[in-house]
Amino acid sequence: EDLKKQRSVQTADPYSSDPVRHPGLRVNSLKPFNAEPPSEILSDSYITPSAIFFKRNHLPVPRVDPGSYRLQVEGLPGGALALTLEDLKTKFPKHTVTATLQCAGNRRSEMNEVKQVKGLNWGIAAISNATWGGAKLRDVLLAAGYRPEVATWARHVQFEGLDRDASGTYGASIPINKAVSEDGDVLLAYEMNGEDLPADHGYPLRVVVPGTVGARNVKWVGRITVSAEESGSHWQQNDYKGFSPGTDWDTVDYKSAPAIQELPVQSAITSPADGAAVEGSSQEVTVRGYAWSGGGREVVRVDVSLDGGKTWQVARLEGGQDQAPPPPGRAWAWKLWELQAPLPPGAQELEIVCKAVDSSYNVQPDSVLPIWNLRGVLSNAWHRVRVKVRED
Amino acid sequence: EDLKKQRSVQTADPYSSDPVRHPGLRVNSLKPFNAEPPSEILSDSYITPSAIFFKRNHLPVPRVDPGSYRLQVEGLPGGALALTLEDLKTKFPKHTVTATLQCAGNRRSEMNEVKQVKGLNWGIAAISNATWGGAKLRDVLLAAGYRPEVATWARHVQFEGLDRDASGTYGASIPINKAVSEDGDVLLAYEMNGEDLPADHGYPLRVVVPGTVGARNVKWVGRITVSAEESGSHWQQNDYKGFSPGTDWDTVDYKSAPAIQELPVQSAITSPADGAAVEGSSQEVTVRGYAWSGGGREVVRVDVSLDGGKTWQVARLEGGQDQAPPPPGRAWAWKLWELQAPLPPGAQELEIVCKAVDSSYNVQPDSVLPIWNLRGVLSNAWHRVRVKVRED
Ligand SMILES: [Mo]
Ligand SMILES: [Mo]
Repeated sequence: EDLKKQRSVQTADPYSSDPVRHPGLRVNSLKPFNAEPPSEILSDSYITPSAIFFKRNHLPVPRVDPGSYRLQVEGLPGGALALTLEDLKTKFPKHTVTATLQCAGNRRSEMNEVKQVKGLNWGIAAISNATWGGAKLRDVLLAAGYRPEVATWARHVQFEGLDRDASGTYGASIPINKAVSEDGDVLLAYEMNGEDLPADHGYPLRVVVPGTVGARNVKWVGRITVSAEESGSHWQQNDYKGFSPGTDWDTVDYKSAPAIQELPVQSAITSPADGAAVEGSSQEVTVRGYAWSGGGREVVRVDVSLDGGKTWQVARLEGGQDQAPPPPGRAWAWKLWELQAPLPPGAQELEIVCKAVDSSYNVQPDSVLPIWNLRGVLSNAWHRVRVKVRED
Repeated sequence: EDLKKQRSVQTADPYSSDPVRHPGLRVNSLKPFNAEPPSEILSDSYITPSAIFFKRNHLPVPRVDPGSYRLQVEGLPGGALALTLEDLKTKFPKHTVTATLQCAGNRRSEMNEVKQVKGLNWGIAAISNATWGGAKLRDVLLAAGYRPEVATWARHVQFEGLDRDASGTYGASIPINKAVSEDGDVLLAYEMNGEDLPADHGYPLRVVVPGTVGARNVKWVGRITVSAEESGSHWQQNDYKGFSPGTDWDTVDYKSAPAIQELPVQSAITSPADGAAVEGSSQEVTVRGYAWSGGGREVVRVDVSLDGGKTWQVARLEGGQDQAPPPPGRAWAWKLWELQAPLPPGAQELEIVCKAVDSSYNVQPDSVLPIWNLRGVLSNAWHRVRVKVRED
């Protein structure tokens, strides 16, 4: 009987307790589950509904009992602290932050098209925007004994997820100044879009690091460690780093590049879709998309071209409707944008291109090959779609 | 006699008390004086000697008597404060910061080549690096009555220079969070490279705003005002802003773009010079240059191509010799870089290209036209030089 039980545990699918997902998602990988919404619907709402928010899991979804859950906070002078979910909800002020998360591999498929890379073949929708609610990491660290003197030796705050396989748990870290800054807005979030976090997004608690690559926004967080060192996980040390287009698997030196934290300026066209047709009789075309930049830099302009990049028009930007303009350096959420423009007379095909500019006046690079890298991360070249003009 | 005096004042050259300058500078404009060092010598030293540090004056150089000089600090609850130079040197701790300054118009000539722009025709050397010494603006604002509550209404810190013409003084502003942040490192500098500020660089006092466009680093600063508003000067409201390549002088709406503050990632090749020849017999070529990014973002990689951008090699980066690695987000100084590489066999000409990557993984755009703008600012496309390979 014991042997039978053991065998059934050994052969049980570790993904068997993964949640049910929205059937409209485009699945890149089932186990672990990785999926993005159809890009045409991504720009339908400023706040992405949680059900279609892109899912990026590295491991099976852990099922966490909220009653026995404890968040361990370690590495500070006062000794370790264990917080219940109730502690986090009642002993710390609740903050809400609307922040866009983007996977480092968003738009990887465009890199794959020019030269093969290693990683999930994401389209343009491994990016979504939600309103997160929770305690400020800063407040929790202060309660756990963080003092300015700690900054003399501490450099990083490490996070460990409760998701695990035989080789261990998911892990990542962020620089300590981001974690403790009043302007960093890092949350230990227990809410997403006004409800408890869904299982796929880290129930009961995840880290939300606004302006920072998805991989550091650790889900199902179980342990926080203030440290002189970065997380030793391969996700921190190897996987989420950018390399030169000339670097290949034989020459890559992981130590030579910093772990990705803030992401560069990004934009993409969500409508019309590549290969779609627009009506020539309407004499007008409407182009829609998203734009975002890391590090709290606000998108200040999106240029759209209908002729492959020869001439440019400025799109209209839409922030959140009831959102006050963000303070400088704290623009964590994307902007949706739209351009309505006359169809160029006689055009039978359009090559529509977009590129965004952020508040530091950083721009997207023109083309993919010069930013190609062996892992296919940081794919932020101008986005292009080709559409036919249908004549009646 | 009175009439004669008056006439001589009216006809006197307001630039007559401008200082003597280094004869090696490449002059873009004499009155006001604007000049850059020959680009080949720019990368000879990590710290740019003050005499060849690029000069960017908007108005005649004012001659300020250090004894009667007063810095007015206004707009704070405690009322106005007037500080002598002695006050600034003795009542506040002295800080030194090594920071690169770059003119918004650096590399404007490359924009001019593709389509005419309005502004001084800078080459690649309207950028230089110095060690600045002075009081922290934060400390002075705190002494003048700044308290956290001020942040509820104040948004900007305005600076007025003592340089003036008939229409008024030079003026600019920065966001208040940059001014009061402990990590912002904004100085009221009275020293440059260990000596009193030279007249061309703001004697007796200038603002140094690390990571921020040169235009906000106000020289000969006479007045500091904490305000809900940006500076009303045309340098803040009109001149130093970026626009879409499709925007011309008929359609420009100055209110539509933010004033340039942080600058985007930048790099250029200082050696070999464009049009130079390299020795084929040496079988090797050495390429040198600079790289820098705004906002305290560190340059993490420079890619160099010898074939116009088809293949790339990674350059060796040189920070300051005795400089500790900067804390994250406070990398204010440039990196010089060098690549020694074999000459491609049989090559008769090389098109050398460089592009830098910063710690947010922002990159430079491939080409100039898509970032062209009517004022020719923010010119940070890949830098290209063509050189001949000389066969003996
Ligand atoms: Mo990711
Ligand atoms: Mo400038």
